[in-house]
Amino acid sequence: MKSLKSKIKNHKLIIGVIGLGYVGLPLAIRFSEEGFKIVGFDIDEEKVKLLNEGKSYIKHIKEADITAMANNGFKATSDFSKIAKVDAIIICVPTPLGVHNEPDLSYIHGTLENIKPHLKENQLLILESTTYPGTTEEILVPFIESILGSLPITHHSSLFTIGENFFLGYSPEREDPGNKNFTTKTIPKIVSGVTENCLELTKTLYDQIIDQTVPVSSPRVAEMTKIMENIHRAVNIGLVNELKILAHKMDIDIYEVINAAATKPFGFTPYYPGPGLGGHCIPIDPFYLTWKAKEVGLRTRFIELAGEINTNMPKYVVQKVGDALNSVGKSIKGSKILILGLAYKKNIDDLRESPSLELIDELIERGGNISFIDPFFKTIPRTRKHNIKLRGEKLNPQTLSSADLILLATDHDDFDYQMITDHSSLIVDTRGRLKSSKNVIKA
Amino acid sequence: MKSLKSKIKNHKLIIGVIGLGYVGLPLAIRFSEEGFKIVGFDIDEEKVKLLNEGKSYIKHIKEADITAMANNGFKATSDFSKIAKVDAIIICVPTPLGVHNEPDLSYIHGTLENIKPHLKENQLLILESTTYPGTTEEILVPFIESILGSLPITHHSSLFTIGENFFLGYSPEREDPGNKNFTTKTIPKIVSGVTENCLELTKTLYDQIIDQTVPVSSPRVAEMTKIMENIHRAVNIGLVNELKILAHKMDIDIYEVINAAATKPFGFTPYYPGPGLGGHCIPIDPFYLTWKAKEVGLRTRFIELAGEINTNMPKYVVQKVGDALNSVGKSIKGSKILILGLAYKKNIDDLRESPSLELIDELIERGGNISFIDPFFKTIPRTRKHNIKLRGEKLNPQTLSSADLILLATDHDDFDYQMITDHSSLIVDTRGRLKSSKNVIKA
Repeated sequence: MKSLKSKIKNHKLIIGVIGLGYVGLPLAIRFSEEGFKIVGFDIDEEKVKLLNEGKSYIKHIKEADITAMANNGFKATSDFSKIAKVDAIIICVPTPLGVHNEPDLSYIHGTLENIKPHLKENQLLILESTTYPGTTEEILVPFIESILGSLPITHHSSLFTIGENFFLGYSPEREDPGNKNFTTKTIPKIVSGVTENCLELTKTLYDQIIDQTVPVSSPRVAEMTKIMENIHRAVNIGLVNELKILAHKMDIDIYEVINAAATKPFGFTPYYPGPGLGGHCIPIDPFYLTWKAKEVGLRTRFIELAGEINTNMPKYVVQKVGDALNSVGKSIKGSKILILGLAYKKNIDDLRESPSLELIDELIERGGNISFIDPFFKTIPRTRKHNIKLRGEKLNPQTLSSADLILLATDHDDFDYQMITDHSSLIVDTRGRLKSSKNVIKA
Repeated sequence: MKSLKSKIKNHKLIIGVIGLGYVGLPLAIRFSEEGFKIVGFDIDEEKVKLLNEGKSYIKHIKEADITAMANNGFKATSDFSKIAKVDAIIICVPTPLGVHNEPDLSYIHGTLENIKPHLKENQLLILESTTYPGTTEEILVPFIESILGSLPITHHSSLFTIGENFFLGYSPEREDPGNKNFTTKTIPKIVSGVTENCLELTKTLYDQIIDQTVPVSSPRVAEMTKIMENIHRAVNIGLVNELKILAHKMDIDIYEVINAAATKPFGFTPYYPGPGLGGHCIPIDPFYLTWKAKEVGLRTRFIELAGEINTNMPKYVVQKVGDALNSVGKSIKGSKILILGLAYKKNIDDLRESPSLELIDELIERGGNISFIDPFFKTIPRTRKHNIKLRGEKLNPQTLSSADLILLATDHDDFDYQMITDHSSLIVDTRGRLKSSKNVIKA
């Protein structure tokens, strides 16, 4: 442990980052900036290849950062035998939901199987993936402790004793793609360990690259913390989405209400409605707790209600699109509908769980003639749930005026909103970006 | 209108404030500080008498402020004929719930009947009471417009035309008793009017005493804004209360989780669990919207869920008290249970809807031998729902050690928590104030 700690403090530690996506890649870059040598692991050969060519596949991550990391010794690989050569292993793999909204830990299990033959004494293993409280203590601890050493099997002794010759921590990622006010370095980071020693090493490691680490008493507290952050958002967004529908019926502008309420200097935080939830965290993580709660015989009713309301928002928008077209004597079927914005929030190129894709699928299913405009996309990349073959159009008066309806799904700042209102005959606005008028319908 | 506006700006306006409670009294004082002459109206003769004697009946309102107001010409009265002598009327009466959670506007209706014979041209009437969106436009407007003038009755003409010779505004109160960071003057105030003129006069009036007024487009937007602020709180508190119960079952300290999550510098605002909701706003106001939503065929499911969970919290605490006593072989029946704290939040003397009273009633019903300690109360004043006859005890080692169980219901800062933990054999802590230990049970 002492040598591990001094390696951390001298930035001589070799770090293996597993999962080179929205979480792992910025983390690897940040460690590399501080002089740590990084080995990046991913099962996706394409990503490995791109990174080793110095290319980025995430818009907000610059190629210059990848190149700088390479100059600092970074290599990407899909060969997990190289785990034997690192001192610390940080797991940043996805934790999605299964088809019945149950936790899908297959990426974590797959990673554990991949690294198992190559683990060695005095390594520090840290999980960053969001997951239910108990994962580290109930899954990772027994897994590590079941790895048998070279002793005669009659001893039933593990090669590793956590906290003594192997160290295990949990530190949830808090990445916020597109956030211009905070970076990996300036977002405080929760750290935890299975034992005191594990916590000390985990905290010391992140202290090298993060301005403020926040130690908590156990991995399950850290796991619950991350989930609570996302529950908070999912529930607050669900609440404004429910109130939005009511406000529409009462002829009240919900955005005016939210902005007025936000002038209260205490006790209120504004959340804004939208066409549905997106991103990898908010729509997914809360259900990890829902699943776990059943083990102790409890329900998580706010999470379930938020899930139900947020999941139904795209259907509400589709209905508003149908009503708008109907008011000018048209049907969705056969109408030319132009979708503005694909990403799940503005000014980013992240399609994960984006409601725009859901909207496009629903409208195509109803026979709509769909096209889209998004400054970040020329085509729509295939995702886990959607496989939409459309080519992006250009934003200009002709494109706008030739559509029967414009559906503003993501309000990128790049869009020329004056041009949009000037040249569109009918607009459905899901983001409260445009002024209400006869041909602008809020949804 | 012009003369009204110049009277406002010259602080020559005479203002009638109706309802001299937690909202009306600080408002009257604030106007008086700026030189306005105030007539205070209340149907409670006792309050009128006390005020005219220079006495305060609300802890955080100083007698010096009442005296200063009297020196400035303030008089309290229950004689509504004096309405004829004021230029502006501000209604600050309670808007509670009926027994079926329906809006009880009886105080507003009573006020309107009381003032009706005495209204005159060119008065400005403003409602401050929290209420459902539509109240001002659907109830006050037709009421004012139905007041017939001296014209022959065949004309069916009203004495008043709103916006021309009578002005009607809505400006929701945002009082927060006990808040040391903000006062009536420094809390921005939402203002609205039935017409442009009404808005202008309402805004100009509050501009004389409030640092920042926030005009909105209609009274119903202002009404919805106030309700939304309280829905936000009710739902967020409901959410942490639900998660608290789950955390207890999973052996996770919910306060540690909340405080760790609060280190996230965006996207999270901490709310804390408790033994139930209190105060006049949070437990009540949201249901005004629930009731109104039915008119347009919609439900407000977040409000209903929050209401259900928050309402059940005292029962959860009572169950924890029972479990704690049971663990030492005792029953609630016959046990000496000492309640610490009566108010609905710490450091104030406000009992409105306080869960402590609910807890005391529930425990008495189960045969508990109940006593209480609260620095602000020697006895328990009768409230709308509770009539508890107990005398307060003194906080000392003897009182603490003679109780079978201490129930910390409100965590006033005045309490000596070291003394409490040192001399109590069993504590149920509903506020996360004490460290967990064998004899401290979180509830």
